[in-house]
Amino acid sequence: MKSSENKTAILSKESDYLKEIYQVWSNRMTANPNMTIEDLRSLFDEWEKPTFEPEDVTYKTDQVGGVDCLWAYPVGCDKTKVLIYTHGGGFAVGSAASHRKLAGHMAKALGVSAVVLDYRRAPENPFPAQLEDAAAVYQALLASGIKAKDIGTIGDSAGGNLAVASVLKFRELGLELPGYVIAFSPWLDMELTGSTLESNADTDVFITVPLLQGMIGMFIGDDSTKVRDPLANPLHADFNGFPPLYINAGGAEVLLDDARRLHARAVDAGVQATLSVVDGMQHVFPFLAGRAPEANEEIQRIAAWYRAL
Amino acid sequence: MKSSENKTAILSKESDYLKEIYQVWSNRMTANPNMTIEDLRSLFDEWEKPTFEPEDVTYKTDQVGGVDCLWAYPVGCDKTKVLIYTHGGGFAVGSAASHRKLAGHMAKALGVSAVVLDYRRAPENPFPAQLEDAAAVYQALLASGIKAKDIGTIGDSAGGNLAVASVLKFRELGLELPGYVIAFSPWLDMELTGSTLESNADTDVFITVPLLQGMIGMFIGDDSTKVRDPLANPLHADFNGFPPLYINAGGAEVLLDDARRLHARAVDAGVQATLSVVDGMQHVFPFLAGRAPEANEEIQRIAAWYRAL
Repeated sequence: MKSSENKTAILSKESDYLKEIYQVWSNRMTANPNMTIEDLRSLFDEWEKPTFEPEDVTYKTDQVGGVDCLWAYPVGCDKTKVLIYTHGGGFAVGSAASHRKLAGHMAKALGVSAVVLDYRRAPENPFPAQLEDAAAVYQALLASGIKAKDIGTIGDSAGGNLAVASVLKFRELGLELPGYVIAFSPWLDMELTGSTLESNADTDVFITVPLLQGMIGMFIGDDSTKVRDPLANPLHADFNGFPPLYINAGGAEVLLDDARRLHARAVDAGVQATLSVVDGMQHVFPFLAGRAPEANEEIQRIAAWYRAL
Repeated sequence: MKSSENKTAILSKESDYLKEIYQVWSNRMTANPNMTIEDLRSLFDEWEKPTFEPEDVTYKTDQVGGVDCLWAYPVGCDKTKVLIYTHGGGFAVGSAASHRKLAGHMAKALGVSAVVLDYRRAPENPFPAQLEDAAAVYQALLASGIKAKDIGTIGDSAGGNLAVASVLKFRELGLELPGYVIAFSPWLDMELTGSTLESNADTDVFITVPLLQGMIGMFIGDDSTKVRDPLANPLHADFNGFPPLYINAGGAEVLLDDARRLHARAVDAGVQATLSVVDGMQHVFPFLAGRAPEANEEIQRIAAWYRAL
């Protein structure tokens, strides 16, 4: 039930990298407002750049439950324990490739394997295709003999939404729930009512309301009822019986209030929920894993939380 | 001295992937002729997509000799043996990230480690910055105790040029030469006189003369003498005393004649040189490693060649 907003008075020089790449992306999107979805996917695959390679991790291209994916196997990890990683990118961009290293760092810190999903993306495949893919993977893992308690869902940004919503989907399907859920800078609110959308607009160098609106259009289209569907917007979900939940966010980002509200909803429902906000950091700052101390320290906090479950 | 042009009457279905992604790239470049160099770099980083993850290979972000690079360490490899991988992309695009998996496959097949260079790229850093970076890495490896004979240079396309030219540069610097050189679909001729530029124009779905002209402009600018500089255009080099050389190319590509002429020059100089041309394949078909049999079989041929050195 802990909520710690870690204050870092001075940001590391290394953490500038994420801010700089986000500023470059913003400038490129502004300079070329007619970017196609293919162009945007190429651009956002640069999300792999901030992350240094986690050492002693191997990978495998695979399909699980019919879903294209990438395994990360830290050398010596317990392969009977699995993180299901749903990448961010507004449900439309980002990939297993862009998030491979980040997933590798997480798997290594926890001593488990990770399966990074190349789930079907919007707009070609709108909501709830992403949750169907996550459920197919989860059911395939259970069928292979992996125990529910040994599986964690994890994701960032829109993928943090999916990490939470997929557990709600598993519950709807009558499945035993996974052991834990981790959400980095989750984007949950499809109604765009968070207070930090405005109050952090000057400090977030990347995420904007128009960008989020574009992503909502691709994810759920024009059906205004879906913005409150708990599977699309987990802030409307019932969190009774939800697994232990670790949430983080950067103090400078416009989506900070989504993280805070998720934490509050979970705590209200009696969930073991932790919120870690690192002051001054941008959206999904764990992308700086291996490069910047803010990300490395956050990952060690998550590992300590996991070991204490 | 062997020249085998392997005929594959029927191409695998899996090999279509490379052809399809090249066609998509061509369409995107045609649709958006004003792509910035940043846009082109994002696009070409998709070169990682055709390649499946080589299993049991770990990675490390590093600097060697002051050059940003990425190590690939197959589990159990001999770390005293090193492939120096210079990636393709017209000296201007492509990266260690786009070529990580391909380098990993090669390192694994040879049982050695690979260091993939993020050398300085044109146009910000024109010729010979790329060769200076390769030389800095080579000298740092030698200084660390790695023996010259246990180092191989390897690259594809423009990086195949660099794999050859860097050895010429090492010779100019008075260094002991590496043990072997591998070039995938090398692009060598900055004068654009190869016969297949025209005769394969209908079968190559990706490389065009205007594309090459654009790359030449970024690499060596307007100085017309540099197109015949042996360090920029190794077809003008003296290959006496050059290390054993393995060259491959796809039978369908416009740069096929560069591979053939390099092989002929090397053989004329008494170099132990092998040329492998796989009929019907596109530019740098080893990118299909792990996915398509044509690439897997080629890599096994290279491994057999290496073991027999």
